[in-house]
Amino acid sequence: MIIAYLGPEATYSHMAVIRKFGSSLRYEPLPNISDVFTDVAKGRADYGVVPIENSTEGAVTHTYDMFVDSELKICAQIVLPIRHNLMAACPRDAIKKLYSIPQVLAQCRQWLQVNMPHVEVIETSSSTRAAQIARSEPNAGAIASALAAEMYGLTILDENIQDSSENVTRFLVIGRKYPQPTGNDKTSVMYAVQDRVGALHDTIASFKKFKINMTKIESRPSKKKAWEYYFFVDFLGHCDDARVKKALTELAKHTMFVKILGSYPNVNG
Amino acid sequence: MIIAYLGPEATYSHMAVIRKFGSSLRYEPLPNISDVFTDVAKGRADYGVVPIENSTEGAVTHTYDMFVDSELKICAQIVLPIRHNLMAACPRDAIKKLYSIPQVLAQCRQWLQVNMPHVEVIETSSSTRAAQIARSEPNAGAIASALAAEMYGLTILDENIQDSSENVTRFLVIGRKYPQPTGNDKTSVMYAVQDRVGALHDTIASFKKFKINMTKIESRPSKKKAWEYYFFVDFLGHCDDARVKKALTELAKHTMFVKILGSYPNVNG
Repeated sequence: MIIAYLGPEATYSHMAVIRKFGSSLRYEPLPNISDVFTDVAKGRADYGVVPIENSTEGAVTHTYDMFVDSELKICAQIVLPIRHNLMAACPRDAIKKLYSIPQVLAQCRQWLQVNMPHVEVIETSSSTRAAQIARSEPNAGAIASALAAEMYGLTILDENIQDSSENVTRFLVIGRKYPQPTGNDKTSVMYAVQDRVGALHDTIASFKKFKINMTKIESRPSKKKAWEYYFFVDFLGHCDDARVKKALTELAKHTMFVKILGSYPNVNG
Repeated sequence: MIIAYLGPEATYSHMAVIRKFGSSLRYEPLPNISDVFTDVAKGRADYGVVPIENSTEGAVTHTYDMFVDSELKICAQIVLPIRHNLMAACPRDAIKKLYSIPQVLAQCRQWLQVNMPHVEVIETSSSTRAAQIARSEPNAGAIASALAAEMYGLTILDENIQDSSENVTRFLVIGRKYPQPTGNDKTSVMYAVQDRVGALHDTIASFKKFKINMTKIESRPSKKKAWEYYFFVDFLGHCDDARVKKALTELAKHTMFVKILGSYPNVNG
């Protein structure tokens, strides 16, 4: 079995993959979220792992947008606590430049302002790339995972430097079909509504009518017409449940289209 | 009168400022969105201009998050068509590295894949910074505004390279109080709901009950507790309108708090 994920190695996506699948399968780190979708769609990988949401920074919009044109289904979620670490090959006082991916820098914004106000902060394409630079460049530090420090032989100078103590990222496992009900499942759908008073309300009322608990709503631009949105909704239940089926039938009456992105076990680890 | 904006000069925010205020006032380009909020809150600037949403890429989440702890009000919106341009000081074939801000690169993703698949793409902190690099570094190109090409003496090699022909960014003018009704206004509010079935539905039903047209909903993590969200809603009407007042009173019954971010003319230019 082959699992594709958003690489490079030692990123938080890599840690999510290991948490879910252990370390005995074949893993393919890929450069972009779209590459992960493509590899799974073409059968070059059985499953893909991509980030969807961070509890501090919010949606990973590129992943949401990929579902618009993809027929892939969500098979599982992985919830990973994110712990950022300051690391370098030099002493802490010697750090003049600090590297990391924009999302990680955003999650450490307050810590950086208080602890390293005069250090030049430089954005990289991945936290692993930041660790590589900290290995090779003098007076450079990185913010990255403990796995990256280990892989590149860097000293962890400060642990858990993210601003929110509850910093958690949710990853999705994508595949070609979604699993059977387990009794504690979650379903993700996307839909579009017409531009009229109460249109969004009527879609959300479809869930309330059948006592279905929405856990999340996200809006994304359709990219087809300015200020036209797609809505992504997560709710508790499996799309094979009778009650969910009724709600989805009701929802279809109030939308231009509904697409079921998948039903999967509602686990938090 | 002093207007602070998200700098540096020649960014799209700068173009939005000129569109709204002309070129005779005093403008202060600032390095971060939070600096713009701080300058206006402390009275060092009368108004601030920050991006809130792009029609292709979606919300500028940092701006949304600033309203959580700020008492500033939205006074106006500016809607600016965004036209990205490929520019360099060398011929097109000589470009080996291409620089721009991540949001601009995202808006040109398909164009880049088709037209420059083998060029190294490097993220910068602003499109103006990208233009500066294209000026000083051999074999470097930038994607930036026409204003940046003019300011740094670069040749525009390709125009309008954004993927969506309807690429528009909405900016907000923030100040210390919002204006009187004009008869065609928009209001922005934020609120939080309790975690129970139908909670979000009941808030949206408050708008439908009084026939108020929601134009936008955005959810953002509260950053206080994982998977707890704040909702940001835009709707037509001014918060001094009788019908809007009734809806906001109804909304308050179904939320933990409601904060009015401002009412402002609903202009699209």
